[in-house]
Amino acid sequence: MADFRILEIKKSVFDDNNRQADALRAELRKNGTFLLNLMSSPGSGKTTTIIRTIEALKNDFRIGIVEADVDSDVDARMVFQTGVKVVQVHTGGMCHMDAAMMQQGVLGLETADLDLIILENIGNLLCPAEFDTGAAKNAMILSVPEGDDKPLKYPSMFSMVDVLLINKIDAKDFFNFDLDAAMERVRNLNPDVSIFPISAKTGQGMDAWTDWLRQAVSQWKKIH
Amino acid sequence: MADFRILEIKKSVFDDNNRQADALRAELRKNGTFLLNLMSSPGSGKTTTIIRTIEALKNDFRIGIVEADVDSDVDARMVFQTGVKVVQVHTGGMCHMDAAMMQQGVLGLETADLDLIILENIGNLLCPAEFDTGAAKNAMILSVPEGDDKPLKYPSMFSMVDVLLINKIDAKDFFNFDLDAAMERVRNLNPDVSIFPISAKTGQGMDAWTDWLRQAVSQWKKIH
Repeated sequence: MADFRILEIKKSVFDDNNRQADALRAELRKNGTFLLNLMSSPGSGKTTTIIRTIEALKNDFRIGIVEADVDSDVDARMVFQTGVKVVQVHTGGMCHMDAAMMQQGVLGLETADLDLIILENIGNLLCPAEFDTGAAKNAMILSVPEGDDKPLKYPSMFSMVDVLLINKIDAKDFFNFDLDAAMERVRNLNPDVSIFPISAKTGQGMDAWTDWLRQAVSQWKKIH
Repeated sequence: MADFRILEIKKSVFDDNNRQADALRAELRKNGTFLLNLMSSPGSGKTTTIIRTIEALKNDFRIGIVEADVDSDVDARMVFQTGVKVVQVHTGGMCHMDAAMMQQGVLGLETADLDLIILENIGNLLCPAEFDTGAAKNAMILSVPEGDDKPLKYPSMFSMVDVLLINKIDAKDFFNFDLDAAMERVRNLNPDVSIFPISAKTGQGMDAWTDWLRQAVSQWKKIH
């Protein structure tokens, strides 16, 4: 036997997470549950977007929300007022959710009878992009005040998402945000991404986004 | 000899970083160089704030800038136009700067003859708060569009900084940002923090901030 071993810690963590994510995705698919992983910077409007999305879809689907935070339950309390099931997950300082943590969140919702679970991931443009959470689709929000150069600076998340919501679009002129330039930068990284300019505050653009999500959930349930 | 060992990887990484940070701080102090570590979310206005700060202080001090990014050199190119020395550090996917990376950035500036180095840290409210970079002072930006609830949700960075800049204050009414509530939440975590509401775009509040920094740099040079 060899007496010298190198443990590839990082690789094994990712391998293991990918296995767990695939298992969670298969389990959710069997139950007809669509998991949406929603990522963004802090303060881009994830919670408001989730609340408006719940309002648009709660007559069509049974919905559960998993709120991931390093600390606090500010968002969970706000979302709870919409009347859907909410679970708060504290990551204990970690800057992402992985599949094992997501599995605990799903168990925390205490029912297999949901059509749609939305994970509000930790506010962070970096780490969450590296961990498969078992989601059916991955979405991110870029908010207008963050600037149209963000795809250049944080390419990995922009490259891996299925949907990009460009939020606070009502503040576009105030911040000289170049929507065409932002969209072109994103499409250079990710030609197939669906992009929806929205204002979760005013409601602008929300129909197009919730129509997309309604269709994605219905399709997922059909082929399960 | 024991044939079973547990390696406390995380602890040793932090211990080692703290030692390297202390050594870097001592070396910078010997040279009369003040290092400011500037942290924030993506898109909060770090680069614009740095450019305005350079403009205010470049007749008083010899200034160098270390731009840390996961990827791209968008910010470094913008800052370079101010005429000061700029080094771009790519962290290779890592969401923070540590003391060893900062040491490389300082070497990259190719002179020990600077009064002030500003590190523009990775856009992230979590990881950078955990790593001492060898800075004389730590500062962060919270921008108004991110919301006045951020201190509740990301307490660790708000707790450890010496200075908080509340940027994009000209957008306060547009976003219903409660400045008093934000400041109270921060002071509950960190009673000694200096807080400056600013707009790097319009110049509002920038004098108070740059006066603070001018004084801090002068004091550091006196006692070196």
